[in-house]
Amino acid sequence: MRRVAVVGAGMTPFAEHFALGIGDLLPMAFAECAASVDKGLRVADIDAAWFGALRTTDGSGILAESLGLAELPVTHIENSCATGNDAVRNALYAIASGAVDVALVIGADKLRETAQKDMLREWESMTRHRAWDYELGLFAPAGYALHVNRYLHESHATREHLAMVAVKNHRHGARNPKVRLPFEITMEQALQAPMVADPFRVYDCAPQSDGAAALVLAAEEVVDRYTDAPVWVRGVGLGLDSVMLQHRPDLTTFPATVRAARRAFTMAGLGPGDIDVAEVHDYFTGIELMSYEDLGFAERFEGYKLLETGATAVGGALPVNPSGGLKTKGHPPGATGIAQCVELFEQLRGTAVNQVDGARIGLAHNLGGPTSVSAITILEGPGR
Amino acid sequence: MRRVAVVGAGMTPFAEHFALGIGDLLPMAFAECAASVDKGLRVADIDAAWFGALRTTDGSGILAESLGLAELPVTHIENSCATGNDAVRNALYAIASGAVDVALVIGADKLRETAQKDMLREWESMTRHRAWDYELGLFAPAGYALHVNRYLHESHATREHLAMVAVKNHRHGARNPKVRLPFEITMEQALQAPMVADPFRVYDCAPQSDGAAALVLAAEEVVDRYTDAPVWVRGVGLGLDSVMLQHRPDLTTFPATVRAARRAFTMAGLGPGDIDVAEVHDYFTGIELMSYEDLGFAERFEGYKLLETGATAVGGALPVNPSGGLKTKGHPPGATGIAQCVELFEQLRGTAVNQVDGARIGLAHNLGGPTSVSAITILEGPGR
Repeated sequence: MRRVAVVGAGMTPFAEHFALGIGDLLPMAFAECAASVDKGLRVADIDAAWFGALRTTDGSGILAESLGLAELPVTHIENSCATGNDAVRNALYAIASGAVDVALVIGADKLRETAQKDMLREWESMTRHRAWDYELGLFAPAGYALHVNRYLHESHATREHLAMVAVKNHRHGARNPKVRLPFEITMEQALQAPMVADPFRVYDCAPQSDGAAALVLAAEEVVDRYTDAPVWVRGVGLGLDSVMLQHRPDLTTFPATVRAARRAFTMAGLGPGDIDVAEVHDYFTGIELMSYEDLGFAERFEGYKLLETGATAVGGALPVNPSGGLKTKGHPPGATGIAQCVELFEQLRGTAVNQVDGARIGLAHNLGGPTSVSAITILEGPGR
Repeated sequence: MRRVAVVGAGMTPFAEHFALGIGDLLPMAFAECAASVDKGLRVADIDAAWFGALRTTDGSGILAESLGLAELPVTHIENSCATGNDAVRNALYAIASGAVDVALVIGADKLRETAQKDMLREWESMTRHRAWDYELGLFAPAGYALHVNRYLHESHATREHLAMVAVKNHRHGARNPKVRLPFEITMEQALQAPMVADPFRVYDCAPQSDGAAALVLAAEEVVDRYTDAPVWVRGVGLGLDSVMLQHRPDLTTFPATVRAARRAFTMAGLGPGDIDVAEVHDYFTGIELMSYEDLGFAERFEGYKLLETGATAVGGALPVNPSGGLKTKGHPPGATGIAQCVELFEQLRGTAVNQVDGARIGLAHNLGGPTSVSAITILEGPGR
């Protein structure tokens, strides 16, 4: 399999873009991405695109049309909250096969628009098994809360550890101009905020945002045309699990993440100890905490220690969500995983807002569907 | 790029499956597909799946769950009416890259269900540019009718040639137990049927059906485990075009098809003259006629001659839609392109209902979105 590198990356702010449609956000992300390509990108060089979106927003054609690239072959990828990193995976396979030399991976979703909010509700009902899950109210906060409540019951972790995730990611996000909630919060604010779905209070939940993000991937044979500082895609992995909760023997782990991580690490020839920086799917604070263990960053039920020691804060041994995470950016699913890779691209090239010193290998992680799908990308920077 | 073969293929009848959901249709198609694998298929051998569906019907997880394969990594592919053959394309890239040895390509849609029909209308509005197309009434029959009317105006083709497509495909479909409309029609019936959208009368239009179809693809290194009569994937191609009609300089050709065909033929190292049998996207009769030219089977404006000489009927030089086509099967978009490949798998192995004598190379063609995306797969049989 020939090697594939990220040679450009860009994103819009994740925000309430009331006045902008998908067709506006896509060119914004693409423009920043193209501008980041060190030696320049000719759009005619792009052989094919993979477009991540929660659902068909205007068909794959609108991507090509909004970018002025009506001849570009575009595939729409949808994989719930893991859409972004699965789009990276599919583009990587196409390049690795030799069929494509340069690929655009781009994603966008617009959740704040009223019409889209109605669609979101419909989508929520469709991604859950109609037999009973959704009728019982298991939309995202409630479904995840079941897992995190059980986790808090079985482990030594407490609500204070959930709050520590929120405080950390808000501290990171406060310096990132791309996030929707760019402010710090205190432990007290987190612990006393209004309840959403026990144990999640307001600051345990990510906001709803609109946004787009884009990457340019290139085959090893042509990387030199675009940059002398490529970020190599070392591994990709997709993992699934049962949709229905009655098929889950253990609520305190997400097998989808475990499977995706095993595949990505195997492909990369790396292990959790090799990761210098990670963007982890903190749609809810407890999911970041539990994912430390599923990703192999901590032993079972010991994830909270990474928070107590500050290991996962910028300045610690394994900074997690230096971008501010979904917690402060929000979560337009088609864009989220790609935006994680945008942050890693900058981290691994030494240009991030909250730069992790010496970061060489990064990991991006999505979990969704509701908790039945995970996609992971492992990137390696040029070394500095 | 290592070679990839189809080693199994199966489908449900395309019909009004009022009592069956997506979760029922998927295992039916998979069971027939698995049973068609000559030396047997162990489901544990499947490394990953690509699931084609018009829209998220129950999330990719439900595919794995309905097949009892909760650990199977599944990517949901959506590309309008070209979804099926684009799912084949993405699975092929994954195998060709070396990342996957055995892949399931499966697709399903359920259009007859009332709720889905509401969703279909919403989806129609979303795949057209919101600026004006849909508000002007350019849903599928009307949009395609603009093209075909202009084509009839500029060429020597007539409404009788459209009717000849319908009569031919109904003659083929009458013998195929998988089609929804298994009866023959006369020229008079076709020409005197009620008008839908001028020039399309009822028999110029495909019916709405529910259905699922599945393929098993395998890398050349492992093909022998499954069959001694593999059907090789020689070429895949995806082509796009502007979504909006005002960007089309010529309504009498579909550039998306021309681009997809160029890519697929180039990859295959073959040309239109090498094709022995084809399944062409006859969502409307005029689209099959126009596609003869876009696919290179006929010179510009001379497609009608293939109908007059009977070349595209079974028994002719280049039989098109021996299955009965979308015209008699209907068009559940996630399944349609995959079902075309199911027909070709049987044709190229000599087991089809309307067998084309000596068929060695086949082509499957989708066009949609509304006319802005095309996906093509070229298959080569084992020779007999």
